[in-house]
Amino acid sequence: MGALRLLSPLHFTHCAYGERRTEVTGARARARTRSSAISPLRSSSLPLKHSEGESITPRSQDFNMWYLDVVASAELADYGPVRGTMVIRPYGYAIWEFIQTYLDAKFKETGHSNMYFPQFIPYSFIEKEASHVEGFSPELALVTIGGGKELEEKLVVRPTSETIVNHMFTKWVHSYRDLPLMINQWANVTRWEMRTKPFVRTLEFLWQEGHTAHATEEEAEKEALQMIEVYRKFSYEQAAIPVIAGRKSRAETFAGALRTYTIEAMMGDCKALQAGTSHSLGQNFSLAFGTQFTDENGQQQHVWQTSWAVSTRMVGGIIMTHGDDLGLRLPPRMAPIQVVIVPIWKKPDEKRGILEVASILENILKEASIRVKLDDSDQKTPGWKFNFWEMKGVPLRIEIGPRDLSNKTVVVSRRDVPGKHGKAYGISMESSFIKAYVKEKLEEIQSALLARAIAFRDSNIVDVKSYEELKTVISEGKWARGPWASGDFEELKVKEETGATIRCFPFDQSPGEKVCFMTGNPANEVAIFAKSY
Amino acid sequence: MGALRLLSPLHFTHCAYGERRTEVTGARARARTRSSAISPLRSSSLPLKHSEGESITPRSQDFNMWYLDVVASAELADYGPVRGTMVIRPYGYAIWEFIQTYLDAKFKETGHSNMYFPQFIPYSFIEKEASHVEGFSPELALVTIGGGKELEEKLVVRPTSETIVNHMFTKWVHSYRDLPLMINQWANVTRWEMRTKPFVRTLEFLWQEGHTAHATEEEAEKEALQMIEVYRKFSYEQAAIPVIAGRKSRAETFAGALRTYTIEAMMGDCKALQAGTSHSLGQNFSLAFGTQFTDENGQQQHVWQTSWAVSTRMVGGIIMTHGDDLGLRLPPRMAPIQVVIVPIWKKPDEKRGILEVASILENILKEASIRVKLDDSDQKTPGWKFNFWEMKGVPLRIEIGPRDLSNKTVVVSRRDVPGKHGKAYGISMESSFIKAYVKEKLEEIQSALLARAIAFRDSNIVDVKSYEELKTVISEGKWARGPWASGDFEELKVKEETGATIRCFPFDQSPGEKVCFMTGNPANEVAIFAKSY
Repeated sequence: MGALRLLSPLHFTHCAYGERRTEVTGARARARTRSSAISPLRSSSLPLKHSEGESITPRSQDFNMWYLDVVASAELADYGPVRGTMVIRPYGYAIWEFIQTYLDAKFKETGHSNMYFPQFIPYSFIEKEASHVEGFSPELALVTIGGGKELEEKLVVRPTSETIVNHMFTKWVHSYRDLPLMINQWANVTRWEMRTKPFVRTLEFLWQEGHTAHATEEEAEKEALQMIEVYRKFSYEQAAIPVIAGRKSRAETFAGALRTYTIEAMMGDCKALQAGTSHSLGQNFSLAFGTQFTDENGQQQHVWQTSWAVSTRMVGGIIMTHGDDLGLRLPPRMAPIQVVIVPIWKKPDEKRGILEVASILENILKEASIRVKLDDSDQKTPGWKFNFWEMKGVPLRIEIGPRDLSNKTVVVSRRDVPGKHGKAYGISMESSFIKAYVKEKLEEIQSALLARAIAFRDSNIVDVKSYEELKTVISEGKWARGPWASGDFEELKVKEETGATIRCFPFDQSPGEKVCFMTGNPANEVAIFAKSY
Repeated sequence: MGALRLLSPLHFTHCAYGERRTEVTGARARARTRSSAISPLRSSSLPLKHSEGESITPRSQDFNMWYLDVVASAELADYGPVRGTMVIRPYGYAIWEFIQTYLDAKFKETGHSNMYFPQFIPYSFIEKEASHVEGFSPELALVTIGGGKELEEKLVVRPTSETIVNHMFTKWVHSYRDLPLMINQWANVTRWEMRTKPFVRTLEFLWQEGHTAHATEEEAEKEALQMIEVYRKFSYEQAAIPVIAGRKSRAETFAGALRTYTIEAMMGDCKALQAGTSHSLGQNFSLAFGTQFTDENGQQQHVWQTSWAVSTRMVGGIIMTHGDDLGLRLPPRMAPIQVVIVPIWKKPDEKRGILEVASILENILKEASIRVKLDDSDQKTPGWKFNFWEMKGVPLRIEIGPRDLSNKTVVVSRRDVPGKHGKAYGISMESSFIKAYVKEKLEEIQSALLARAIAFRDSNIVDVKSYEELKTVISEGKWARGPWASGDFEELKVKEETGATIRCFPFDQSPGEKVCFMTGNPANEVAIFAKSY
């Protein structure tokens, strides 16, 4: 077809690249926040390129630059005028909408209702829960002037809503009959981050935050685990990201929680991305805010709570899990455009017939609820279009040329399989056949991206038996997994010396006796260590 | 059935009540803002009652207290901790979700994409468009501290996004090929209002704001008109609110627009509610922000723009259009619960069989995608439940008692038709019959609420031929419609002397020569005057 490939596709199965820019900054005083991730981000002030012809930096050359190039060239996001803010552009926002639609339905199925809390929180609220204020106060945005007047009490622009939620829950909960109270809100939140990166960490971001109150600890715990499972399932089945679900270490637990559960994703540079968290809050907030109920025996009790969140960061996770040197690769279920049709003509008299057939095909696929785009512009060559839509990560391309027209066939190219291996020639355009064929291919691509990500993940997690082994593995840019029964002090030491933190104690633990690789003490669990976003 | 009615239903067909509390405050310096409405709100600091047994103030006695009681008792919203803020509770939020779902689909059908702009806007942006800053500066919330430090430039928490949108459009638009640019965002906005009222006017509210850029004035004008038509259709067909669509007077035009189109709704107390607006912005913002494109002749041109919005205020409009002395009345298409099933038993041995059948019926209706709730609690009497669900505005109630059980029938009661006339006895529970029956009844209720609202509206708009007539009509609490060809000065005079403003010049104009009732000059159009929220 004569497509001018910018770069030949590369396959990455190891992590020994892209680490050049990594500078370990040691322990950061930064608080344990929900969107956590302790190592700093780099280069966020680099300008985003603006598509049209500019090629993207190869992933193998500079992962961070590649990421920023993809975000800009695929028109996923742009920088806002205020430092650290992000404008989510339609193509990026559509991915967020798929995340929203799936999760919103799951939240409702599991008994939660949506509602909305104000984003302005009296400053005094934040101070009520001791570890919460410690965690969030360094990164607050404060409104001090309203309607032209200095305010008596500063207002916090919500960084998360536990405090205001508890203030309201205290008004609404009286009896055990009012429990469980299970709600969710889709909202913007603000955290004054110093090192930002589109989607991954921005001053303002979008998320959902679930908040529940229960009569017993067991029920709250069950809820927290249920919601991390919802996130895990979403990641596998929709985003094709094989996250590892587990429990955070004490040092990495959310400010104000008893236990934090997390899903950790391995990005293309092998760094970990905390992609969602669910917190078992215990009675910390209900004690601070006096959220009580009368139980069945007439006794006053404090409620047990959870909170859980997934944010626009997930979009960054999708980009960095699947992308390659050519740009974005979207799992079909997350793709705003699943199929692009590129008509190809040389002589002007071929054009009309080909466009006519391309348009018929477009409608056939639309009828089958396939998200399809016909790129019929005559401003660009087919080769330019091939590159452009590959860069945009469209899973499937259908080409129709003069020969196809006479044969009533098309050429179908898979985004995830480069070169000739990903091309199928002479595919019949017959309506029911092509519908089924395209659907099957999209499912295949969805599975193939997941399988590839699982293989990548598994080949980059190394079991370690000693601290020396861990150091080697981390220095190679991989994840280390080893038995751990040490405390905060040793965890901080690992972080300072290697840049890696405990990402989680995975739920999936092999049985048998273990020995902590740090202290030699008996250990119950293995922990996963990695550098992270 | 023994339902204890709190109050007998009243029918209102005139507006000569509820005006006791109205105090005309004369011209307010308040700027012409999108959510506009110039007369102040009263009593917003009254406490919201908390359901459970407390009866609501009769609508006929005090419309404002009735409204606040309904909002509280039906658990639609609650006050947030910061003055003027509102917590939207699940029952109220579900209504907003119906609004969102419908409009979002329409926006996409008409070629718009969703995206998201940051809510923090540099203060200098607001100053760029002269009338815009004049309109919005008195009601801004300003962030002055971020991450513990005083900011160099104050940040405005968005009151609307035209400025930041134009800043970004200027980066994205280069050629006529980039146009039209048609986007929408669902977001929260902040306006430092002094007189607030749940849903109707709050310090922070939720809305959608559409923003488009076009190559020609004609195209922008067409777009602005298309979107007000989307809102009008939504109001009629979904919310059963017979709004009057038209053009705002110059004095009531959005700060920065050439023309503002509006849908004006008549509330149960006959006051007008501006329920949605669409602005033809001309080149005001593109000139201020340098948003230019190269046209087909290679010439630099400034884009022509529109913006349009509907907010959570619409929920207030639904409450105040349809509610009656018993509480809320929801149009079936906007009802989170369309049907409530109330099982009735006296002897304990009846209970099991009745609950079993009630549960079967619940599932039958769910299968038909009817939003149904089975109220099977044994904490409350059937009479209490009748009152409660009537107060919550559920369109249809199904009662199942022991006699129904043996007859395999149910009793069906319409919320909108009080007393025996609204009851149908002996309705067969046979699956396909009851599904069709319930669907038909819901459609009937939807139509009946609209028809009733149209009749109410039309009986409260009076054509006037002189200023004296207008004064009388306005003092009776009605809307006055009359030929108008006067200027801002006369409009202000009417406002100061009567409390009424021009709500709009309706699109629907009768032909023929007209004479301005104020000046006696020839007039092209009639205008509608009313007091408003």
